[in-house]
Amino acid sequence: MDDYCDDIILTGDRPTGPLHLGHYAGSLANRVALQGRCRRQFILLADLQALTDNAGDPGRVARNVLEVALDYLAIGLDPARSPFVLQSGVPALAELTVHYLNLVTVARLERNPTVKAEIQQRGFARDIPAGFLCYPVSQAADITAFKATLVPVGDDQLPMIEQTNEIAARINRLGGREILPEAKALLSTTPRLPGIDGKAKASKSLGNAISLSASADEVTRAVQMMFTDPAHLRVSDPGQTVGNVVFAYLAAFDPDRAGVAALGEHYRRGGLGDSVVKKRLNEVLQALLGPIRERRERYARDPAQVMRFVDAGTAAAREIAARTLDDVRGVFGLRPAATIAGRSAERLSLPVEAG
Amino acid sequence: MDDYCDDIILTGDRPTGPLHLGHYAGSLANRVALQGRCRRQFILLADLQALTDNAGDPGRVARNVLEVALDYLAIGLDPARSPFVLQSGVPALAELTVHYLNLVTVARLERNPTVKAEIQQRGFARDIPAGFLCYPVSQAADITAFKATLVPVGDDQLPMIEQTNEIAARINRLGGREILPEAKALLSTTPRLPGIDGKAKASKSLGNAISLSASADEVTRAVQMMFTDPAHLRVSDPGQTVGNVVFAYLAAFDPDRAGVAALGEHYRRGGLGDSVVKKRLNEVLQALLGPIRERRERYARDPAQVMRFVDAGTAAAREIAARTLDDVRGVFGLRPAATIAGRSAERLSLPVEAG
Repeated sequence: MDDYCDDIILTGDRPTGPLHLGHYAGSLANRVALQGRCRRQFILLADLQALTDNAGDPGRVARNVLEVALDYLAIGLDPARSPFVLQSGVPALAELTVHYLNLVTVARLERNPTVKAEIQQRGFARDIPAGFLCYPVSQAADITAFKATLVPVGDDQLPMIEQTNEIAARINRLGGREILPEAKALLSTTPRLPGIDGKAKASKSLGNAISLSASADEVTRAVQMMFTDPAHLRVSDPGQTVGNVVFAYLAAFDPDRAGVAALGEHYRRGGLGDSVVKKRLNEVLQALLGPIRERRERYARDPAQVMRFVDAGTAAAREIAARTLDDVRGVFGLRPAATIAGRSAERLSLPVEAG
Repeated sequence: MDDYCDDIILTGDRPTGPLHLGHYAGSLANRVALQGRCRRQFILLADLQALTDNAGDPGRVARNVLEVALDYLAIGLDPARSPFVLQSGVPALAELTVHYLNLVTVARLERNPTVKAEIQQRGFARDIPAGFLCYPVSQAADITAFKATLVPVGDDQLPMIEQTNEIAARINRLGGREILPEAKALLSTTPRLPGIDGKAKASKSLGNAISLSASADEVTRAVQMMFTDPAHLRVSDPGQTVGNVVFAYLAAFDPDRAGVAALGEHYRRGGLGDSVVKKRLNEVLQALLGPIRERRERYARDPAQVMRFVDAGTAAAREIAARTLDDVRGVFGLRPAATIAGRSAERLSLPVEAG
């Protein structure tokens, strides 16, 4: 991805909480880098998908749409080049999902390793919501609606791309021509950022993540609390850098690669205290997050403007998705949605009642 | 249902073939009777539902939308009082389906007796399309979209109403107020019309049904071929009227109830030939189908006008369903769809490319 590519990228987040450094290292930084280097990059605020397992707490999803959009603007995503798209504002996605559900068997969905794994992880057993089982189909709708050809994913999400391409191939076969392009995975090469407590995953719900909106003091406190090497008791002791959260964060964020290598060697040899490496990490994170925080605060003063960015991206996405939907409707012998809508001027004399 | 009722009725058909006398006896005649006796009667041309098991032959569904609409007009359904609604022209139905899928577990869908029975009947085993498993949820979307309170069904479809009411109750609980009304079943009291060959079900695909569009000759031939009592060899023999298709059709369609009773008694006693009862049935069916055929031919001369009726009913339905969708979106913390659409004037400068 060093040069300009002709790909359409689809990426995004479930708006269930503000984004944090784990997201930044894993995907957000990459989006900023990709911006302007591809044909278009759609950033999906996947609120409908977030509702598949937050149906009981919908307020959480609604609140976080603004928070996540603020995070996007704060890190430097430009809504004109990387449109922010609110999933629930693109009705074609639901209709594509319904069409695709006819092309996928229940057995195939149950075999999907991502669904299998998440079912286990969430302890759903057989009582999973049908929406959760159908979630790979909904993702296929997202990807194909924008005719995305490149989808940044972790390797645990490869089965989603596979399922999407199966559906696209089926549509193309039924239609007798290429209607939906094949999507390729853009595999992330960044190792997953651990939580500040040393747990494998930094997550808002575990309380072990540093938000992109964290204050300078919160960052400093988080760095001070960070898990290092519990056997590294005296400065003179040799220390472990593997499994040491401070070094994991330095590897992810310190632009001075040689400096990090030298610090690590010194630490492993002995004679380097945690406080020195934590001081360096604090400088690095403050330098990274300071400008992000400033931009975030500036945008947060005008939430209506932020939502206008979201709405404008969504409106543009809606047009593109509607065209894809019409292509897919054609495969099923259905007229373009607009030709039905267009004739609505000739109305029946139905009294339209309130609620 | 003798008097005017305040109910909103939802009924309809899967447009997979022209309608026949079995449909007429089972539901169409009742729709004509209900027309104007209820607040509103929506007639759904369930093309999306028909695609759940016709995805490989979509042309069949598309062709039959016109045929079924012609049948409706021919029997005297008035599109101003009983709007014809093309399911695929009401995008809110797909979005409601997607929302409801989060409220129903896979185990609950698999327990649905109608789905169970149809899975067995169609020999799907585990490889059922996901759309088929989700079909009760899609029906719940149809019923609730129009806030239907009365749904004419056979008793094999009662589980669908139950599933719909479970979803409606869940939405109302989440919303803290009555958003979706309870739907009641209007159970059909008419026994199922047998095929002309004596099989339990008259069906187009079995070739044992008399189409509403059958010519006079076709009707006469079908009556002549009708299964009667195979043991009734001589006119003087006593005959069976139970399991005798000619008597089943007379019971369903002959307005002269006393005459049918007398014929039946005579037949059972002996001394009445099949040709006499078949002659009577032929008269009855010609009298019933003659005007239907004439009206059908008249409307068939202007298919564009027929589709304008469908489009007008669909446009009216779309408005009503969109309001219901906004109510349901509100429960999930989602803004009304129109507020997002309304802001689309402020566009990003995205170049919109062709296909």
